[in-house]
Amino acid sequence: MTAVYDIENFHRGLVEHGLIIPGEVKGAYGRGTVFEDILRRFDSLVMRTAEGDGAQELTFPPILPRALIEKLGYLDNFPQLAGSVHSFTGNDAGARELSSLVQSGERWEHLLDPTQVMLTPAACYPVYPSFSGLLPDAGRLVTVLGWVYRHEPSDEPTRLQSFRMREFIRMGKPDDVVAWRDAWLQRGLGLLQGLGLPVQSDVASDPFFGRTGKMMAAQQVDQRLKFEILVPVISQEKPTAICSFNWHQDHFSSVFGIRSADSSVAHTACLGFGLERVTLALLKTHGFDPAGWPAEVREQLWP
Amino acid sequence: MTAVYDIENFHRGLVEHGLIIPGEVKGAYGRGTVFEDILRRFDSLVMRTAEGDGAQELTFPPILPRALIEKLGYLDNFPQLAGSVHSFTGNDAGARELSSLVQSGERWEHLLDPTQVMLTPAACYPVYPSFSGLLPDAGRLVTVLGWVYRHEPSDEPTRLQSFRMREFIRMGKPDDVVAWRDAWLQRGLGLLQGLGLPVQSDVASDPFFGRTGKMMAAQQVDQRLKFEILVPVISQEKPTAICSFNWHQDHFSSVFGIRSADSSVAHTACLGFGLERVTLALLKTHGFDPAGWPAEVREQLWP
Repeated sequence: MTAVYDIENFHRGLVEHGLIIPGEVKGAYGRGTVFEDILRRFDSLVMRTAEGDGAQELTFPPILPRALIEKLGYLDNFPQLAGSVHSFTGNDAGARELSSLVQSGERWEHLLDPTQVMLTPAACYPVYPSFSGLLPDAGRLVTVLGWVYRHEPSDEPTRLQSFRMREFIRMGKPDDVVAWRDAWLQRGLGLLQGLGLPVQSDVASDPFFGRTGKMMAAQQVDQRLKFEILVPVISQEKPTAICSFNWHQDHFSSVFGIRSADSSVAHTACLGFGLERVTLALLKTHGFDPAGWPAEVREQLWP
Repeated sequence: MTAVYDIENFHRGLVEHGLIIPGEVKGAYGRGTVFEDILRRFDSLVMRTAEGDGAQELTFPPILPRALIEKLGYLDNFPQLAGSVHSFTGNDAGARELSSLVQSGERWEHLLDPTQVMLTPAACYPVYPSFSGLLPDAGRLVTVLGWVYRHEPSDEPTRLQSFRMREFIRMGKPDDVVAWRDAWLQRGLGLLQGLGLPVQSDVASDPFFGRTGKMMAAQQVDQRLKFEILVPVISQEKPTAICSFNWHQDHFSSVFGIRSADSSVAHTACLGFGLERVTLALLKTHGFDPAGWPAEVREQLWP
């Protein structure tokens, strides 16, 4: 049987099977019990796979300092994706005005002020500031599971405004970092193939904004700084990225003064599994009811 | 030995033991490996305690529709706590302006527009819209674990801008809902006492804004709509709420048309454990190193 790729039918199937709970905003649906169970089980499989690596596990909230976003140049490259958090800091009279605007269905956001935080645009961002200074000889390995925000409302179930990434972040000497990235690319392919997903890997680029952005993206591809693992979920021709590998060279380490044991500027790289996307890829490939998934897939997720 | 309550020393101890990773914004610190392990283990204990109840587990992202916040009157009551998400939707020229303002250290938020989403102010909010219509005879029970945002930057480690709540939400006939709330109040006290926490329960009120808010809070206390379980963490005199019980009567059900099987307007109630606060209460009560905690506490969290 040839798989059919059709956004509307896939979405309807997800809703009908209670896998997602649709809402009034695009890309912000709820996750049902079974969806969440698959997601957590996949994350556990990744963590078991990485167990021997001794990654330090850290957890950050879905917000981070506005100053960090500014410092990292995120607004130069991806202004269209950023989410800025604004709050009301006024007095009683201001609150009455706000309330009355809301009640009469008028806009009220001009009564707010920017807070000190923004939404986390990449799960690894909060990690780097903590590692300023000298790394140990072997460098560092950190893992985080975090909620990520991207302002890109879409009808595609695979394109969410808010989703979770399981990331691993490596900091150390350039050769060590690249070797780690290369090894994980093979490991990631093996792990996902082992779940029966028809994956392929490819050089990729980030969604840099505007005309200048096109040049940035081309450079990124030339320098082979970003790879993705892709699998057809909503289209055969345009497969969905479910895992990405980013070699940042000294982009983060130079900003935060992260240095190798010999005092040279360290390199960093990260890789991340898009947990909702992997879950959706499994549902698309094996069907809406995990009870009917192939035994070799179930054995790994329900060990 | 009498316990000492001192915000600065408690914070320093948490940092020195790697339990939290301080950041540049108040109330947005990272959680270390051991902190997160305790938090998850407490959540597992709650879920084991509630296992027989058959709650349906749903998961929502840390954002929700702006329209939902407007509809629920949150901005009338708690405008100071809300977080509104704003994004850049301009063209190339606008992006250049934004970028240049950021680089010269000037304010740039006036170039943003409000999005369709806000930060989730209470983990139970996204649940209600999904249950419009008739409930089954016995009503419904749902559980969620979600990230919550409150704009209240503070030096107290127990007052976070972003934190997790494990909530249970009951919808049904008024008597059933109140009986459920009363039973869980006892169960929650027992569960937390079983972990060696010197808890007490009390009638409570929400932090309604401004002068009118004081009246709302007084009414809420009069009607005994809100209870909290409290434990000393940063002060003996002002113990910290680690679990709260809210009887909403028909506040949510009337907005979303949630009706009991006999077509009458249903009531709703929820209870939530503040997972970071419970973790901090355990660390304060038993010490910074869980290896040294009393055996009867460890047995429950490391079963």
